[in-house]
Amino acid sequence: MSKKKIDAITDMNIDFPQWYTDVVKKAELIEYAPIKGCVIFRPYGFRIWELIQNQLDNMFKAEEVENVYLPMFVPLSMMEKEKAHVEGFSPEVALVTQAGGEELADPLCIRPTSEILFCNHFADIIQSYRDLPLRYNQWCSVVRWEKTTRPFLRTSEFLWQEGHTVHTTNQEAQEQAITMFNIYAKHFEDNLAIPVIKGKKSEKEKFAGAVTTFTIESLMHDGKALQSGTSHNLGDGFARAFNITFSDKDNNLVHPYQTSWGVSSRMIGALIMVHGDNNGLVLPPKVAPIQVIIVPIAQKEKGVTERAEQLKNELAPHFRTKLDITDKSPGWKFSEYEMKGVPIRLELGPKDIAKGQAVLVRRDTGEKVFVPLDDLTKEIENLLTIIQNDLYKKAQNRLKEKTYVVDNMKDFETTLNTTPGFIKSMWCGNNVCEEKIKEQTSATIRCIPDEQETLGNTCLYCGEKAKHMVYFAKAY
Amino acid sequence: MSKKKIDAITDMNIDFPQWYTDVVKKAELIEYAPIKGCVIFRPYGFRIWELIQNQLDNMFKAEEVENVYLPMFVPLSMMEKEKAHVEGFSPEVALVTQAGGEELADPLCIRPTSEILFCNHFADIIQSYRDLPLRYNQWCSVVRWEKTTRPFLRTSEFLWQEGHTVHTTNQEAQEQAITMFNIYAKHFEDNLAIPVIKGKKSEKEKFAGAVTTFTIESLMHDGKALQSGTSHNLGDGFARAFNITFSDKDNNLVHPYQTSWGVSSRMIGALIMVHGDNNGLVLPPKVAPIQVIIVPIAQKEKGVTERAEQLKNELAPHFRTKLDITDKSPGWKFSEYEMKGVPIRLELGPKDIAKGQAVLVRRDTGEKVFVPLDDLTKEIENLLTIIQNDLYKKAQNRLKEKTYVVDNMKDFETTLNTTPGFIKSMWCGNNVCEEKIKEQTSATIRCIPDEQETLGNTCLYCGEKAKHMVYFAKAY
Repeated sequence: MSKKKIDAITDMNIDFPQWYTDVVKKAELIEYAPIKGCVIFRPYGFRIWELIQNQLDNMFKAEEVENVYLPMFVPLSMMEKEKAHVEGFSPEVALVTQAGGEELADPLCIRPTSEILFCNHFADIIQSYRDLPLRYNQWCSVVRWEKTTRPFLRTSEFLWQEGHTVHTTNQEAQEQAITMFNIYAKHFEDNLAIPVIKGKKSEKEKFAGAVTTFTIESLMHDGKALQSGTSHNLGDGFARAFNITFSDKDNNLVHPYQTSWGVSSRMIGALIMVHGDNNGLVLPPKVAPIQVIIVPIAQKEKGVTERAEQLKNELAPHFRTKLDITDKSPGWKFSEYEMKGVPIRLELGPKDIAKGQAVLVRRDTGEKVFVPLDDLTKEIENLLTIIQNDLYKKAQNRLKEKTYVVDNMKDFETTLNTTPGFIKSMWCGNNVCEEKIKEQTSATIRCIPDEQETLGNTCLYCGEKAKHMVYFAKAY
Repeated sequence: MSKKKIDAITDMNIDFPQWYTDVVKKAELIEYAPIKGCVIFRPYGFRIWELIQNQLDNMFKAEEVENVYLPMFVPLSMMEKEKAHVEGFSPEVALVTQAGGEELADPLCIRPTSEILFCNHFADIIQSYRDLPLRYNQWCSVVRWEKTTRPFLRTSEFLWQEGHTVHTTNQEAQEQAITMFNIYAKHFEDNLAIPVIKGKKSEKEKFAGAVTTFTIESLMHDGKALQSGTSHNLGDGFARAFNITFSDKDNNLVHPYQTSWGVSSRMIGALIMVHGDNNGLVLPPKVAPIQVIIVPIAQKEKGVTERAEQLKNELAPHFRTKLDITDKSPGWKFSEYEMKGVPIRLELGPKDIAKGQAVLVRRDTGEKVFVPLDDLTKEIENLLTIIQNDLYKKAQNRLKEKTYVVDNMKDFETTLNTTPGFIKSMWCGNNVCEEKIKEQTSATIRCIPDEQETLGNTCLYCGEKAKHMVYFAKAY
């Protein structure tokens, strides 16, 4: 019997950041790397990423998006072309100054994002309106040298996808940006079981170089918000800076309009912080590397392991199934797979076999059901659907509970300090108020939501005429 | 009608390197990037990579290999630990010396390969024999700053996979290295339709830090060899340098044995240079992004486009099918998809529709067949299998024709200069002879093949007693 044991993790209600770190390590998602702010995606963590990647990639391909791969380097001289953009990224850049034993005359930034390289490429390959629209995506890692880091949420190198599209008209670009934004929201709700607030970023919070930034914002267990995916209408600013042109139908040389959009491995951080509990990770079935873990009870008794193997072979074509026949105790296995958030545990012992049944235990509720062996496939399929939906509903209820309407700064600060969550307020649209609120409370405008409500007529900060209803929160 | 036209490419018999560059550009596989030695994988080129990646990934997963992701950075200080290894890679390294606005005390190498980071990670996570074997793989890009570069074959940044495994015994490591080497050979032969020579590298040519390097070598159209995939038994050298230990069954703390193995985007270079011809790329069906291109003839005539669309919908579930209804002429489309190496062109015009047939044209032979519309799926399926097999046979015949047996240096040089290809010779096993031959002819020992033959008793260079039959060639 293995002496290895899963130690208890920190209580999430006592120390949420420590709980998070414990889960990340003990569920074997991440190991720290010997490079500041960088992490190692272990097999279990990377498999979640692969599942997510696959789901998104299929949705992108259905929108006629094609994958490409551009270099990881952006020449420093080229970064200078789009002023707003370079100001947004230069403080976080990692610079290659030597290569092949020589000093580089023009140092190379490791991409913090690839708008600049894509624009340079577009200028090379686009000639005519016949070449448009052009819809590219790239799965890669990017580097932003961060002062404080946390696995999945903010690391110096992280995994993401970045889409880049080019269009003949501004309207088409705007529609494309919205389409991708909707795909992200759908992915969060349908696959990750995470409800999101959809909206636009304020001028202050939008992407460096964008005309409009669409964002989906989700709410973590501790009441902090997570910017979960953004889609930008870039207008023709980059096209002008990089001299991207095309001949239109009347043979005039004009600038096209662009979008870019991205989601990253922070989605896994969201999964942990939305669904997790004090026993560890809780994974929605659609992104669970193992959907059903079979744990034999009294596995040394005659026929148990054999029957468990038979079951595994029956279930494997339908579900991501694993059978654990190591010599650890069943109790140890229970906590291990609870820690890993496996949606269903299937227990099978000699008594179950005698009765022709198995026990199914839900990770999310702990609920047990006894199921005839003949009905297993059907019952598991149903149960996985129910779990997926229940996780979404639970998260949705929490989002509702933790969303507060506030119309003055005193209540705003009290709410943030006592019951953190989303704060819905009216705002004048002036970035001075936005800035002051941030200075005073460290909460930011997460978005100007698509679904506007009139909660009052005046800005919660200055008392002037309100322009938008916005969501405020402290954010990761 | 588009004015765009595909210009003829350089004749491969006149200027093979230029032919290669022409194909790479005109088939829209690659575009040059504004960074020395770096390229952009365009959608068509990247799709080939995705197909290959998918095939290999499935084979790896069947061997219980798990994917992970490690940082792109290796601290320079850590590189120093395995002496042979660092000497092998340091001249080609790209160095990050500044990040987040500060000079780094310990500069970071961008990974030229990740043995060092994997070893550091293994030392952290391996405790007991129960943790072994451990089989990891990583899909990523690596950077080796090369003086002369060529798309797919040698670029400063390239795409690859690197497998890293850890075992309790040297024998198990050796077996794993051979298993992966066999998977590579199978992939080349079954999917890429490229025959390979399987063998070991000489001491001089093996991987920096390996005990044994297994290699598959293929032969390009111009008679130059391409090292196509390598698998290394690393012994316990890295484990000793990085202090990786595990408790064995008797509770002794011992060092494990390791392997690493990789193939890269140079596989696409091999596809081009083995199968291509003077009309461009010729793709084996298994790795063709488009397997069937439907070109309507007289598409403005009533019913043609509609029938072509119907056909497309019929074929799409079975084959990677594209219908081109742009306003380019059929002739233009023919050359475009020939350039792109699409295995089958399906022509459909009003006369064909009247006769209830379509025309299928093979890219590899130009052969035309008329097929009743009702039999299309079955006929295309057969034809794709035939094309896949024929491409392999053709390459195999060329490999045989261009493999020469030589037993003296005069013939060796004549052969290299007049009929380049593989040269099979007997060799004493001494690296002095190997070195001299390289200096004199620039040919290297590609491998000591698994299938040994006794061609004579003496080394072709020194005349001493021969130890191995080896394959020489000039190589990419």
